[in-house]
Amino acid sequence: MIYCLFNRPGSGGFVVEAALSLAETSFELQEFESKPGTPLHESFRATNPWGQVPTLILPDGGTMTEAAAILIHLAAAFPDKGLGPAPGTSDHAKFLRWLVFASVNLYEAVLRRGYPFRYTTDPGGHGALAAAANARLKDGLAVLEAALAPGPFLLGERMSVADIYFAMLFTWVHGEIEAPHLVAMKNHIKAHPVIGPIWQRHFGDR
Amino acid sequence: MIYCLFNRPGSGGFVVEAALSLAETSFELQEFESKPGTPLHESFRATNPWGQVPTLILPDGGTMTEAAAILIHLAAAFPDKGLGPAPGTSDHAKFLRWLVFASVNLYEAVLRRGYPFRYTTDPGGHGALAAAANARLKDGLAVLEAALAPGPFLLGERMSVADIYFAMLFTWVHGEIEAPHLVAMKNHIKAHPVIGPIWQRHFGDR
Repeated sequence: MIYCLFNRPGSGGFVVEAALSLAETSFELQEFESKPGTPLHESFRATNPWGQVPTLILPDGGTMTEAAAILIHLAAAFPDKGLGPAPGTSDHAKFLRWLVFASVNLYEAVLRRGYPFRYTTDPGGHGALAAAANARLKDGLAVLEAALAPGPFLLGERMSVADIYFAMLFTWVHGEIEAPHLVAMKNHIKAHPVIGPIWQRHFGDR
Repeated sequence: MIYCLFNRPGSGGFVVEAALSLAETSFELQEFESKPGTPLHESFRATNPWGQVPTLILPDGGTMTEAAAILIHLAAAFPDKGLGPAPGTSDHAKFLRWLVFASVNLYEAVLRRGYPFRYTTDPGGHGALAAAANARLKDGLAVLEAALAPGPFLLGERMSVADIYFAMLFTWVHGEIEAPHLVAMKNHIKAHPVIGPIWQRHFGDR
């Protein structure tokens, strides 16, 4: 069996596709053509009971969800491909800290903007929820921007899959904050020979 | 240098304290006496710019935040203490998936209930936000309950720090869902010779 990735274009599975490509492993891509912001078909809950992509089926048949968890796993499963630092080291602690921070605080804020009906029982409350999500996104990106200094990557000169994750989140926010480290790092990712074409297919010139 | 953990009683740092104790390593505990639901003093942002506990200072001086990230790190840093499976394995993939799932979906919902002013700009919207958070918590715990079968622990007969994390989240929800696997697992945690006394100090008989 090879890896099988469920995703839809422009969604968080971009980063898993990029990581699988950097790992130089074979994988099958199952893309849903529905737009982000619309629920997936109920039948997908048989694959992921939480009903979200990305969802990755492992070669041994196991199922993984949560893009950050998948990245941490792939980095450890392909230790010679440079996806991330060695587990247990200080660099890996930093890698874990900021991947989970971004997952909990930034990715989740993007979802609150895109799926406000999950986060309030008041249909009139969506605007106030999105406004707060935007403020949290900006604050969180400012914290991440500081963590990226001196750069160009989170771990200095060495790119990891955490950088790809941060670039993806940053592009979803469309330059609403002053963040020169994030901009420079995103440009590295977009120009990367392996990741660049995948970025282009998911996000175009954004 | 030894580990230094910043926390407050009843907060998510409980699980980090439990993990450090299972690792049988020396650590210093800095406890804030303010109540969960109130912001921490602004000066703490010099230690964690996001202003949250738990925050762990590593022996090499590095800073970690995000309880789930800290658990993943400690499990790898103390590979012979049984805190979690070996990185790169299928069991570790499962451990990562559910720790990150619980962090993003359950812990974050607890924060939305406790700190609604972070999640909506409408002061009249807190009730509708808490109601939606409760519904998400129940749905998420049901997904976790299914992941725990057959139990008694996430990985079968072997307890990991993920179980301690799930038990903590479950106790914050006060038995609002039917979840026999979570109840049985929580009772194992509360009766554990090392973790039980720490649980008692943070949560009493809950």
